[in-house]
Amino acid sequence: MASSSHPSAPCAACKFLRRKCIQGCVFSPYFPPEDPTKFTNVHKIFGASNVSKLLNEIAPHQREDAVNSLAYEAEARLKDPVYGCVGAISVLQRQVLRLQKELDATNADLIRFSSNQNILRPPQVSGSSIQNPHVLPTSDYYGIYSPWNYNP
Amino acid sequence: MASSSHPSAPCAACKFLRRKCIQGCVFSPYFPPEDPTKFTNVHKIFGASNVSKLLNEIAPHQREDAVNSLAYEAEARLKDPVYGCVGAISVLQRQVLRLQKELDATNADLIRFSSNQNILRPPQVSGSSIQNPHVLPTSDYYGIYSPWNYNP
Repeated sequence: MASSSHPSAPCAACKFLRRKCIQGCVFSPYFPPEDPTKFTNVHKIFGASNVSKLLNEIAPHQREDAVNSLAYEAEARLKDPVYGCVGAISVLQRQVLRLQKELDATNADLIRFSSNQNILRPPQVSGSSIQNPHVLPTSDYYGIYSPWNYNP
Repeated sequence: MASSSHPSAPCAACKFLRRKCIQGCVFSPYFPPEDPTKFTNVHKIFGASNVSKLLNEIAPHQREDAVNSLAYEAEARLKDPVYGCVGAISVLQRQVLRLQKELDATNADLIRFSSNQNILRPPQVSGSSIQNPHVLPTSDYYGIYSPWNYNP
């Protein structure tokens, strides 16, 4: 949550920039004096002037989120000067692709298993129904299980 | 790939900053004059001075990746001033969680199905083996299928 610093203590930004922290300072609610690193990181990567410009261009109720996302990006860039948080995006994208592939393969296994079960215990004999709530009911899906495809 | 601009044409950075593009200009290989937006975006978000400092701090063979990741971040921040590319991270993280949950549920279904199949056709009668290559062989997994747990 945005904190309003003590009136007598300048915010971390004004302290770092050695300037008077006036009432209505655009940095003050988001850069409390207790956390100087948040500002120094953001300043090092984006520059105080760019951050100030950005904050003035967005609605006050969104400024805290903006500062936090800038702080996140700045920290990532300081940790990894080459890729910054784009490295995290790349890792996550690969993870999504891998999981989607695994899920597709597991769904295919499930369809194969339940198809075998159908062959051994055709629906008209066994009352059990084979359903995977995690597979979207596409025409292909129903095609496999429809009785007119039953072919032992 | 990093392009070396024509000696007579200043790079996009020097053109924008109205300065002479000298030989060995740190921006020149990564900001060709044909793509002025790449530099203006990066300059608007990070500032030319910060980008120059960053490039000088990393190895030459990594500078192209660094510039491209900065250009990606800058474009994302211009499109979404509040969240920038952190918004993409958040979306991807939720997608990973959802897929992992779906995969877990599908794996659980697969185990349940093949367990039922075992009950109907116990291993000593049927020769079929139940395997899901997508489930990591944990002790729980084997526990379910081990013959000493067979309990019709």
